[in-house]
Amino acid sequence: MAADFEERIQATGRRLYQMVEGESPTLFQKQYWMGKVLDWCMRDEAFKVEMFRFIDVFPYLSRPESIARHLQEYFGRPELKLSSALQWGMRFVSPTSITARVVAKGFTDNITSMAKQFILGSNPQEALPALERLRSLGIAFTADLLGEAVVSEKEADEYFHRYLELFDVLHEARDRWPALAKNPTELDWGHSPKVNISIKSSAMYSQMNNAAFDYSVGMAKERLRPLFRIAVATGAFVNLDMEHHGLKNLTLALYRSLMEEPEFTDYPYTGIAIQCYRRDSEADLHDLIDWGRKRRILFTVRLVKGAYWDLEVIWAREKNWPIPVFANKPETDANFEKLAQIILQNHERTRLACASHNLRSIAYVVEAARDLKIPAEHIEYQVIYGMGEPIRNALGKAGLPVRVYAPIGEMLQGMAYLVRRLLENTANESFLRQSFAQGIEVERLLRNPLEVLKENPPHPEPERAAPEYGDKGAFHNEPVRDWTLTEHRERFGEALKSTRKTFPRKVSVIIGGKAVKTGREIRSINPNAPDEVVGVVTAAGKAEVEQAIESAKAAFPAWRDTDYRTRSEFLFQAAARARKLRFELAALQVFEVGKTWGEADADVCEAIDFLEYYGRETLRLGTPRRMGQAPGELSHLVYEPRGVCAVIAPWNFPLAISMGMTSAAIVTGNTVIYKPASQSPVIGSMVHEIFKEAKLPPGVLNFLPGSGSEIGDYLVSHPHVALIAFTGSKDTGLRIIELAAKSSRHAQGVKHVIAEMGGKNAIIVDADADLDESIVHILQSAFGYQGQKCSACSRLIVLEENYDRLVERLRSAAESLHLGLVEDPKNFLGAVIEPTARQKILDYLTIAREEGTILLQRDVASAAQDSSLITHHSTLNPLSSSPSPLLPISVLNTAWHRKKSSVPYLPSSRSKTSRKPWRWQTARSTP
Amino acid sequence: MAADFEERIQATGRRLYQMVEGESPTLFQKQYWMGKVLDWCMRDEAFKVEMFRFIDVFPYLSRPESIARHLQEYFGRPELKLSSALQWGMRFVSPTSITARVVAKGFTDNITSMAKQFILGSNPQEALPALERLRSLGIAFTADLLGEAVVSEKEADEYFHRYLELFDVLHEARDRWPALAKNPTELDWGHSPKVNISIKSSAMYSQMNNAAFDYSVGMAKERLRPLFRIAVATGAFVNLDMEHHGLKNLTLALYRSLMEEPEFTDYPYTGIAIQCYRRDSEADLHDLIDWGRKRRILFTVRLVKGAYWDLEVIWAREKNWPIPVFANKPETDANFEKLAQIILQNHERTRLACASHNLRSIAYVVEAARDLKIPAEHIEYQVIYGMGEPIRNALGKAGLPVRVYAPIGEMLQGMAYLVRRLLENTANESFLRQSFAQGIEVERLLRNPLEVLKENPPHPEPERAAPEYGDKGAFHNEPVRDWTLTEHRERFGEALKSTRKTFPRKVSVIIGGKAVKTGREIRSINPNAPDEVVGVVTAAGKAEVEQAIESAKAAFPAWRDTDYRTRSEFLFQAAARARKLRFELAALQVFEVGKTWGEADADVCEAIDFLEYYGRETLRLGTPRRMGQAPGELSHLVYEPRGVCAVIAPWNFPLAISMGMTSAAIVTGNTVIYKPASQSPVIGSMVHEIFKEAKLPPGVLNFLPGSGSEIGDYLVSHPHVALIAFTGSKDTGLRIIELAAKSSRHAQGVKHVIAEMGGKNAIIVDADADLDESIVHILQSAFGYQGQKCSACSRLIVLEENYDRLVERLRSAAESLHLGLVEDPKNFLGAVIEPTARQKILDYLTIAREEGTILLQRDVASAAQDSSLITHHSTLNPLSSSPSPLLPISVLNTAWHRKKSSVPYLPSSRSKTSRKPWRWQTARSTP
Repeated sequence: MAADFEERIQATGRRLYQMVEGESPTLFQKQYWMGKVLDWCMRDEAFKVEMFRFIDVFPYLSRPESIARHLQEYFGRPELKLSSALQWGMRFVSPTSITARVVAKGFTDNITSMAKQFILGSNPQEALPALERLRSLGIAFTADLLGEAVVSEKEADEYFHRYLELFDVLHEARDRWPALAKNPTELDWGHSPKVNISIKSSAMYSQMNNAAFDYSVGMAKERLRPLFRIAVATGAFVNLDMEHHGLKNLTLALYRSLMEEPEFTDYPYTGIAIQCYRRDSEADLHDLIDWGRKRRILFTVRLVKGAYWDLEVIWAREKNWPIPVFANKPETDANFEKLAQIILQNHERTRLACASHNLRSIAYVVEAARDLKIPAEHIEYQVIYGMGEPIRNALGKAGLPVRVYAPIGEMLQGMAYLVRRLLENTANESFLRQSFAQGIEVERLLRNPLEVLKENPPHPEPERAAPEYGDKGAFHNEPVRDWTLTEHRERFGEALKSTRKTFPRKVSVIIGGKAVKTGREIRSINPNAPDEVVGVVTAAGKAEVEQAIESAKAAFPAWRDTDYRTRSEFLFQAAARARKLRFELAALQVFEVGKTWGEADADVCEAIDFLEYYGRETLRLGTPRRMGQAPGELSHLVYEPRGVCAVIAPWNFPLAISMGMTSAAIVTGNTVIYKPASQSPVIGSMVHEIFKEAKLPPGVLNFLPGSGSEIGDYLVSHPHVALIAFTGSKDTGLRIIELAAKSSRHAQGVKHVIAEMGGKNAIIVDADADLDESIVHILQSAFGYQGQKCSACSRLIVLEENYDRLVERLRSAAESLHLGLVEDPKNFLGAVIEPTARQKILDYLTIAREEGTILLQRDVASAAQDSSLITHHSTLNPLSSSPSPLLPISVLNTAWHRKKSSVPYLPSSRSKTSRKPWRWQTARSTP
Repeated sequence: MAADFEERIQATGRRLYQMVEGESPTLFQKQYWMGKVLDWCMRDEAFKVEMFRFIDVFPYLSRPESIARHLQEYFGRPELKLSSALQWGMRFVSPTSITARVVAKGFTDNITSMAKQFILGSNPQEALPALERLRSLGIAFTADLLGEAVVSEKEADEYFHRYLELFDVLHEARDRWPALAKNPTELDWGHSPKVNISIKSSAMYSQMNNAAFDYSVGMAKERLRPLFRIAVATGAFVNLDMEHHGLKNLTLALYRSLMEEPEFTDYPYTGIAIQCYRRDSEADLHDLIDWGRKRRILFTVRLVKGAYWDLEVIWAREKNWPIPVFANKPETDANFEKLAQIILQNHERTRLACASHNLRSIAYVVEAARDLKIPAEHIEYQVIYGMGEPIRNALGKAGLPVRVYAPIGEMLQGMAYLVRRLLENTANESFLRQSFAQGIEVERLLRNPLEVLKENPPHPEPERAAPEYGDKGAFHNEPVRDWTLTEHRERFGEALKSTRKTFPRKVSVIIGGKAVKTGREIRSINPNAPDEVVGVVTAAGKAEVEQAIESAKAAFPAWRDTDYRTRSEFLFQAAARARKLRFELAALQVFEVGKTWGEADADVCEAIDFLEYYGRETLRLGTPRRMGQAPGELSHLVYEPRGVCAVIAPWNFPLAISMGMTSAAIVTGNTVIYKPASQSPVIGSMVHEIFKEAKLPPGVLNFLPGSGSEIGDYLVSHPHVALIAFTGSKDTGLRIIELAAKSSRHAQGVKHVIAEMGGKNAIIVDADADLDESIVHILQSAFGYQGQKCSACSRLIVLEENYDRLVERLRSAAESLHLGLVEDPKNFLGAVIEPTARQKILDYLTIAREEGTILLQRDVASAAQDSSLITHHSTLNPLSSSPSPLLPISVLNTAWHRKKSSVPYLPSSRSKTSRKPWRWQTARSTP
C-alpha cells in the first residue's frame, strides 16, 4: 500500500465532501413533516420508539378511530414526558371525535408521503417513470420488490410472478434507455446490464428451514432458477440480497449451488451481498472468492455494512447465541475497508459494488482501487433511494458510477423497509445523521476507523450482575442449536444414527441406587414407526412402590440436613452432564415421543434450564431472610423440605418437565420417587442417569417406571408421601388432588399437590397485529410437536378487520407445512403419540363437522405423493407396514373449524375476547 | 436566679474536678481484667454486645464445658472480626479440653471479682463490714437487696423475709455507728437515719398488673406496709426505687397510697425516686409535690437520670408506643437540672437526694441550693457502689453529704444489675467514661446541657422508608393499650358497661348488603356467665348459602376489575373505623368469648394490623413485576383473584383471624362469604359492620352466620366457591380439604384451600436460659386466654441443668395466677369457651393421671374463697347459679403432668428436642 494512502483517502474524502456542501437530504429538512419527526426522534429516544412502533403498525389501521386510538395509546401515556407528543393534541380527545379524525387524516397523508420518499411505486409499471428519471440523471438502479414475509407456497408463487412482471416491464423499457457511459455500448459503463434486479432468498421458498438445509436450498432453487434463466436470456443482472442471520448461510449456499449449475457457470452478471457488520463476513468472503476462482465463476459482491443490526443483536440475545455482528460501528467500518481491499485484489474475477453512504468508506475504495490500478468505471457505488441524495450527487459529480437501490411495492409491504431506513438514519452513528443533522466536522467524519478503535477499544458487554446467585452468575437460558451451522446438523444426524443402534434399550427400576427386577415389562414404541421398540423397561408394581418409599424416607433426614448450597451443587453438576449429552438426549426424543429436531433440542435445553435455574434460586431462597423489625425479636424465614415427593411426569416434555419437577423437589431437600410416563420411560431413565453421574446420594432419587393405572393411585395415596408433583391430563390431575386430600387424614401432614394440567390457550390477533409474525407463530404454537403441548394455541381469536386476510394466509401457510417422519428435519409435523390420541382427534373432527366448518384438512397420503419429501426408511413407512398407522393422525390434527358456538374447555373468565364469536379449535388435552 | 449562676456552676464544677484529679475509678484501670474488658467494650461495639451477653448468661453456666462452649459461640463466630477475641484462645479448642477448662476457670474468677466490684456481699451479714467501712470513711449508704424477678407469691414472701432480715441486721448494728455530722446527733448530718433501705415495688407482689391497677397496688401494699411499719418503729429510712415504664405509675401510686395511711402520714423518713430521662417526669414530680403539700407529707425525692434507657426504648419500639424517655442525653441532663430546681424550691416539704455521677449536674445542685439558701448538709449526694469512687471522694472532700447505693445479693441475682452498670459505664455518653476513660477536657464536660442542645437540637427519628407502600409509609403494629394510663383503664371499664347494655344484640345474615330473615336463630352465650345471652343471631341455611354465593358471584367481575389501589383503600378505611371502635370491639370479646382485657385488646389490634398490612402488601404485590430479561419479550407477573371465597373463621381470635382472612380475600379481588364461628357471631358481625362503614360495595362481603354442621359442607363443596380460607380444628380442616378436592371435579377450577389448623408448640428451656424471662413467657404462652390458641405452648422441654429449678418456680408462679371472671382485669384465666372444651380438658387430666404426674391442679373453689378477687356480678356467679358452670374448667386447664412417654400430636420431625424425655402437656386443639 502506498505510503501516502491514508492522506489520499482524506483528500478524496474532503473533495467528495466539498461536492456535497450546500446540499442536504430531504430527510433532514425540518420544514417538512418527516424532517421534523426525525429531528424529534433523534432528540428523544422514548419518542423515537413510540414513533417507529406507530409507523410500523400504521398500514394495518384501516379506520381513523384506530389511528387516533393508537396515537393516544402510544403517545398519550403519562410517563412519556414528551413535550412534542403534546403537540399531537391527541391526549384528551375521544378517538371518534372530529379532531381525532382530522389528526388521523393528517397522519395518513404524512406517513404516505414519507413512504413515497423511499419507495418508487407500488408496482413496476408505476415505478418505471422514477427509474427512468434516475437514468436520465446518469444514475443506474437495481430494482427490489418489497413484500410481506412469504409464509406459504402460494405467496411464494405470487412473489415469483411479481418478479416475472418486473423482468417483463424492465426488459420492455430498457431499449429506450441509452447506456450510461462515456463511450456508449449496450452496457452501462461498458460492463453492466441496464436491467439490474435484487432478489431476496426468503421469497423463494416459504418453508425455509436450516435444519433441512440442503432440502431448503433445493426448494428455493426451484423458484430462483427460472428467474436466473430469464436474466441469462435477457442479459439482465441479478443480485441476491442478504437478510438476517437465519438466512445468511442458506443464501450463500443457494447462490453457489445455483451458479454451479452449468447453464449459469459462465454468466457474469450475477452478484451477492456481504454484510461487513458480521464477524464472519471475512471468512464468508474468502470462501466465496476461493469458490469463484476454483469454479471459474465471475460475480459481483455488493459490500454493505448491514441493515439488521438491532434485530441481530436482539435475536442473538433472545437465543443466548453469540452476537454475530460487531458491537461498535467503527469495527464495521474498518471491516468494510478490509473486505473492500480483498475484493479489489481479486478484481479479475470478483467485482466490487461499494454500497455505503459513508464518504470515508467511499474514499477508501476510490483510493484502494487507484492503487490497484482498477479503472474507476469498474466499481459501482450504490446508494439507497431516498437517502443521502447529496452523497449520490457528489459521486456523480466525481464521475463515479452510481447505482440506486430502488424498492418497489405497496406501503403495507414496505413499512418494515421504511422503519429499517428510519432506524438507520436516526442511529447515533449514522454517517448521514452525523454529517447532515449534526454537522460534525469533516475531519472527524473522515477519520480512519482503525484509529478510532485504537482510541476507544470495544469493551466486552459486562455480565448481568446477580449477587443473589453467589459465584454462579446470572441465569441464562441454554442456547438451542443454531441449525445454520453445519456442525450442528451433522452431529445431530450422527446422533440419530448412533442412538437408533442402541435400541431396544433395557431400562430398570432403580430404588436406593440399585436396579430392581420385577418380571414385568413395558415396551416403549417409536410413534412414527410402531414396529420399532425403543426400550424394554422393567415395570414397577405396588411392592416396588413400597420399597421406593422406604428408600426415599430413609434418605430423607440426611438429605434434608444437607446444606442447601451443597444440594444446589448437584443440580449444577447434573446440568453440566446433560449439556454433554445434548445430542443423544434430543435424538432419543425424536424416536421415543416423535419430536422434530428443533422440538427435541428445545426440550433438552429446557431441562438444563430447570437445573441451572432451580440451583440458583435455591442459593437465593436458601439464605435465611429477616422478617419484621421489632427490636428484641429476630425472626428468619427459611424453607424446609416436606419429605418424600412423588413426581409423576408426562410424555410430551419427557426430559424437561421430568427434570424440572424432580430437580425442584431434590434441591429443596425432599427425596423423590420419579415415575416417568409409560410412553417415555427411556428418556425418563436419563433423568436418573444424569443425577447418578452427578453423584447424587442413592435413595434421594428413585426411578419407578410403571403403569399409571397400576401404581399411580397407590403412590399418591400412600401415607408417607408428603408431596406430589404432577404434570399431565386434567382427569388424572383432579384424581390425584382428590386422593391426596382423602389420604391426608392418615398421613403425617396435609399432602401438597402441585398439578399442572391441560390448557386451552387462545391467541388473539388484534386489528393492528403484524400478520407476517402472527402466522408464523400461530403455526408454531398450534402445530409445533403436533400441538401436543398444554401451552399450544388451541383457540384463535381474530378481530374482524383482519379476519379474512389472516384466515386465508394462515390456511395456505398451514397447507405448505411438511408432514412426515420427524427424523427428516424438513417435516414440521409427525405422528401423534399413540392410537388413543389419534382417536381423540378423529372425534374432534366429527364435532367440527357438526358444529362448524373445517377450513383445512390434509391427509398424509397427499403429502406422501411428494415422494421426495417423505421417508427414507421405507421399512418404517407408516402408510404401508404399520398395523396402526399413526402418521395420518397428526395430519388430522391440523384440522380446524369455525365453531357455531363457543364452549371453551376452561372458563376464560378474565378474557375480554369471549365476546368474539369466531374461534378456531384444535383438539388437545395434554399438558 | 443570680446573674452569675452559670459561672458559679462552672467554677464549682472545676473545683470538684480538681479534687478528682489524679484519681481514676478501678473500673477503668487497665491493669485489671475488668478495666481491660471495658476498654475493649468501648472500642468495639460487637465485642461489647457479645461480652455483655456472656456476662448475662454466665451465672447459669454450671459447668466449665458450658462456659467454654458459650465463649466459643459468642466470640468464635468468623464474622466477628475481633482481634481481642482471638486472645481468648478459645476459637479452635474443644470445650472439654484442658485449655478450655483453664480459660473457663479464669473467666469464673474474673467475673466473680467483677461482680464483687459492684456488690457488697451476698447477704446483709456478709455485706455489713463493707457498709461499716463506708461509714468509717464518712459515707452513708442505702442498702438494696438484689434479686431475681418475683414470679410467684412464694418468691415475694421470700423477698419480704430477706428485707426483714436486712432491717434486723442493720438495726442491730447501727448503735455501734456514730452519726455522720459535724455536730453528732442520732441522725446523719442532723436529719437522716443511719439505716436507709431501698425497696423495689416489683418485689412486693408477683402478679403486678396495670389493668388491675388498684388491686395490684392493694396487694403490693400488703407486703410493703409491714416493712414501712418496721421503719417507723425503728426510725429507719425507706425509699421506693423506680424501675421501668410498666411499674412507674404503680410505684408512684403504691407510695402515695401507703403514705396516705394515717400511721405513715407523719413519718418524714421515706422517699421515692424520679427518673429524669422520662419525658413525663416533670409532671409526675409536680403531682407528687402537690400531693405532699396537700396531704402535709414530708418526703425525699431521689433524683436520678435513669438506668433502663435501652430497655425503655426497645420495649416502646416493640409495642409501637411513644418512647417514654428522652432520645438525647443532654435533654435528660437539662431535665435533671430543671427538676432539681423544682425540688429545691419546695425544700420545706420535699428533700432532694441528688443521685448522679455527673459533676456538672452536681455543681448545678450545689449552686442552686446556695441560691435558695438551703444548708449544704440538707442535700444528699448519692453515688453507686463500685462506680466513680473519685467522684465520691471529691464530694467528701468538698464537705457534701454522700450516700452510696449499696446492693446486696447473690451473683446470680446481681448479674442483671451488673450488666446495667456496665452498659451505663461504657455508654458513649457516660460522664464517667468521658471523664476517666476518654479524658475529655473539663470545659466540655461542664457545659450547660441547654447550650449543648441549642447547638445540636434533637432530631425526630426518621420514619423507616417503605417506597413499596407508596404514600402509606412503613407498616407498624397497632399499639396495644398501655394500661399504665388511667384513661385506658377507665374507658375500657366504661366500654364493658355500655357494651353489656346492648345485650342481647340482634345480628342478621347479610347477603348483597341486605339483611335476610330465615326464621332460625343461634344464641351466643357469655362463657363466663352462661345465663347471659350476648346475641340472638339469624342462622343461615342452605338456601342462604346459595343466595350468598349468587351475590358474591355477581359482585365478582366488577370487584376483580377494580384497581388494586382502590381495593386496598377500603382496607385502610376499615382499619381507621376499627381503630375508632377499639374499646367496644375488645369489650365484646370479653363477653362473647371470655378474653381478658389484654387478650381482647390484642385481638382487636391484630385485626387492624391485618388491614394495614394486607392493604400495604397489595400495593407492593399489585405492581406488575417484570420477569425475565429476554429482549423482545415483556412478561409481567401480576396476581389475579380466584373468584368466590368462603371464609370459615374460628372463635378464639374472633375478630383478628376473621378480619385477616376476609380482608386478604377482599383486597386481592375475590368476593367473600364469611361464616363466623357459632360461638362468636356477634363479634363476627362487626367485620361486616366495619367494612360496611368503609363503604365496601355490597355483595363483595356477605355475612353468613350459621351452624357449621348444617351449612359448612354445603358451602365448601359448592362448585362456585373457588377459594376457601379456614382456620380451626384439624378435623374440620382436613374434612374441608377433602371435600374441596372432591368437588373440584365439578367446579370451575381446582379449589384452593388455605387451612390453618391446631398446633402443639414446644418451648425449649436451654441450660443458659434466663429463668425470670422464661417463666413469665411460658405462663403467658401456655395459659394466656386459657391456652385456647394454636400458638400456645403445649409442650415444655427443659434441659437437665435447669429442670428442678424451673419446674419449682413455674409451679409456684402458676399457683399465683388469679382465676376468675375475665371482666375483672386481675384475673389471668377465665372460663373456657364451652362445655365440650371443658370435657376435653377433663379427659386429658385422666390421661395425665394414667401416664404421668400432675404437677399442679387448682380448682376454682379455692380461688373463689378469696372473695375479694371474684365476681362483682353475683347474679352471674357461675359457682352458684349456672346450670353448667364453666369457670372451673378453665382452672383445670392449668393442669400439667410429667409424661412417661412422648406421643406428640404432630410429628416434631425436625426438632432436635425430641431426645429429651420430659415434656409438659396442656390440652388444646384450637387453632
